[in-house]
Amino acid sequence: TKAQIRKKKKSFYFLMIFTSSGAGYHSESKAKEYKHVCKRACQRAVDRLRAGGLALEAVTSALMELEDSPFTNAGTGSNLNLSGEIECDASIMDGKSLNYGAVGALSGIKNPVLVARRLLSETQKGKLSAGRIPPCFLVGKGAEQWAISHGIPACPTEKMTTKFSLSGYKRNKRKMELAEQVETKRKRQLCEENNSACLDTVGVVVVDREGNVAAAVSSGGLAMKHPGRVGQAAHYGCGCWAENARDVSLYSTAVSTSGSGEHLIRTMLARECSTAMQAENAHQALLEAMQNKFISSPFLAGEDCVLGGVIVLRCCTCGEAQRSEDIQALLVEFLWSHTTESMCVGYMSAQDSKARTHISRLPPGAVAGQSLAIEGGVCRLGTVSD
Amino acid sequence: TKAQIRKKKKSFYFLMIFTSSGAGYHSESKAKEYKHVCKRACQRAVDRLRAGGLALEAVTSALMELEDSPFTNAGTGSNLNLSGEIECDASIMDGKSLNYGAVGALSGIKNPVLVARRLLSETQKGKLSAGRIPPCFLVGKGAEQWAISHGIPACPTEKMTTKFSLSGYKRNKRKMELAEQVETKRKRQLCEENNSACLDTVGVVVVDREGNVAAAVSSGGLAMKHPGRVGQAAHYGCGCWAENARDVSLYSTAVSTSGSGEHLIRTMLARECSTAMQAENAHQALLEAMQNKFISSPFLAGEDCVLGGVIVLRCCTCGEAQRSEDIQALLVEFLWSHTTESMCVGYMSAQDSKARTHISRLPPGAVAGQSLAIEGGVCRLGTVSD
Repeated sequence: TKAQIRKKKKSFYFLMIFTSSGAGYHSESKAKEYKHVCKRACQRAVDRLRAGGLALEAVTSALMELEDSPFTNAGTGSNLNLSGEIECDASIMDGKSLNYGAVGALSGIKNPVLVARRLLSETQKGKLSAGRIPPCFLVGKGAEQWAISHGIPACPTEKMTTKFSLSGYKRNKRKMELAEQVETKRKRQLCEENNSACLDTVGVVVVDREGNVAAAVSSGGLAMKHPGRVGQAAHYGCGCWAENARDVSLYSTAVSTSGSGEHLIRTMLARECSTAMQAENAHQALLEAMQNKFISSPFLAGEDCVLGGVIVLRCCTCGEAQRSEDIQALLVEFLWSHTTESMCVGYMSAQDSKARTHISRLPPGAVAGQSLAIEGGVCRLGTVSD
Repeated sequence: TKAQIRKKKKSFYFLMIFTSSGAGYHSESKAKEYKHVCKRACQRAVDRLRAGGLALEAVTSALMELEDSPFTNAGTGSNLNLSGEIECDASIMDGKSLNYGAVGALSGIKNPVLVARRLLSETQKGKLSAGRIPPCFLVGKGAEQWAISHGIPACPTEKMTTKFSLSGYKRNKRKMELAEQVETKRKRQLCEENNSACLDTVGVVVVDREGNVAAAVSSGGLAMKHPGRVGQAAHYGCGCWAENARDVSLYSTAVSTSGSGEHLIRTMLARECSTAMQAENAHQALLEAMQNKFISSPFLAGEDCVLGGVIVLRCCTCGEAQRSEDIQALLVEFLWSHTTESMCVGYMSAQDSKARTHISRLPPGAVAGQSLAIEGGVCRLGTVSD
């Protein structure tokens, strides 16, 4: 019926998802797995949006699916740290309220993003007893206890460890022992080998039917990291950023990042990309941001191997006087860029019946950590207002 | 002798220090203590600078003195968390290398800033074995273990707990139980009461004889915070910021912040103030930053009580053609601003024989969390170049 079509049409939404990786990982066999999980994550978010959920709920659903995949370095299957334990980082940001929640070095919880999401919603409830401001960032044991006391079930580490992550740990341990012997000489080479195993983090950006944006990331962190190390996925402004359009900013923007945590922290890449996205030409702006604020950033002077990737969403509701009053149009530009060998991206709009996935690779001959790939598209979405 | 004078004159430096506080705390009796500790911290930094130390070493020395004071909410005498434990946050940034180090929710170490400082210097040494990037941010138990394995001695919590912090904990616990009963009605009032007890964090900014800036902060965090909660003092861009002048930026800037951690995080206040400081009029720029990027920040929409304070240093080596070639002049502008009832500031230059201290207060009738005080000065320093 017409009413049904109307209801269906009511949502414009768009979402993008990535799993990022270093060299060698997105081999043909792996590629298939990554594409699959990206597709499933897109579908999960879309299901949520179709059921009336907003951007914040959609990013959470999609990210949980990515965390649950044993192939991604987030949640189940995360890299093990130096002590052979799993410690996860995750964060989430709501472009509408600008609220934020993050967890760092979190063990014993299956879906770290769920805790970040809960922290975010608790801050929206106002002050705690005795006027205490609710926390937006919790780490370690305290974060785990907080999660459990807020009804999020505990999950034994063994259940989150996979055969793959365990064998990776053993391989890395041997490599480290070897590296301690050969020392500086082969450093560079070993760096690249190691990087390939540590960057498979995941991120999601979404715009919902109301035009709100949200972003989230989750990561098991660097393989063989020191216990207690917190990476960009739990750093405000570094792992993800979402900001709805308002007075000074014409565009709503959402960004998620992946890569070498310390590089993404010191360059505050998510927020920098979001800021850059207010320029007229989105593609040009992202290219310049990746070049000047990341690869050649003064904050990374002396680094010759800067590995990272971003997904970026920007949108504006275009005022179109000539169109029917009850129809609004949302112009969505979606881009991804990376200095890693490859990055797997999935995306889906309200007009699509299924998600598209794509493995983006550096151009032939380009050196990972020094050059970049940038791709993307534009999508016009309509909605029927009430 | 002339050579000695020359040597003595060789250093231009300036430093500023604060302990920040909410209402009621900087009472006349307390004020004296705060001024004393600020003076001692200034002296410690100056001793370090006179001995040839650079900005980074000077901020560390000063901050350690502040942490060791039982009156400040940092290191010894820190607020206890909900479980009655001490968990400290600290960070440090070097304007020259733009390197950064931070620790969060750290227990069992007397001087948290020392660990942050060590993390920073370890990152400068390049990659770890197997090409692993050294961490810049460690939290919890892992941070404690890292510190100890790097030769920083452990310190039992009992030694860092004071009679004062323990009685504060008991008082807060009673207050919380009471608040849980009366609930929302007196919330606002209780907020103010509680805030007074939780904001006494400390920070330092320094410019050294070479014109390098550095900044650091340390905090015991919110009283009765949830274990694992990490505040602005350990958040990149939020607790402190330091950036030497380079091509695009005319001024070197250093900023440290204090106040309600979550508000300082979400507004990224340290970095915002640093960015603002590139405008021509420093006073006007800081006033606008505090007003538009903090009190009225869109990131804190709905908050009617935004508590925080900053100290800001900006300097430039003025090209003066008419002066002797081997004499350089450094123009230092130093400012402080706060929305809390009061803030204690200490400062000292190479020309001063002793530190000056000052308790800055909101103007009469001004409402804490909604209005601000701003003060500062200008200082011209000379140096003989080699």
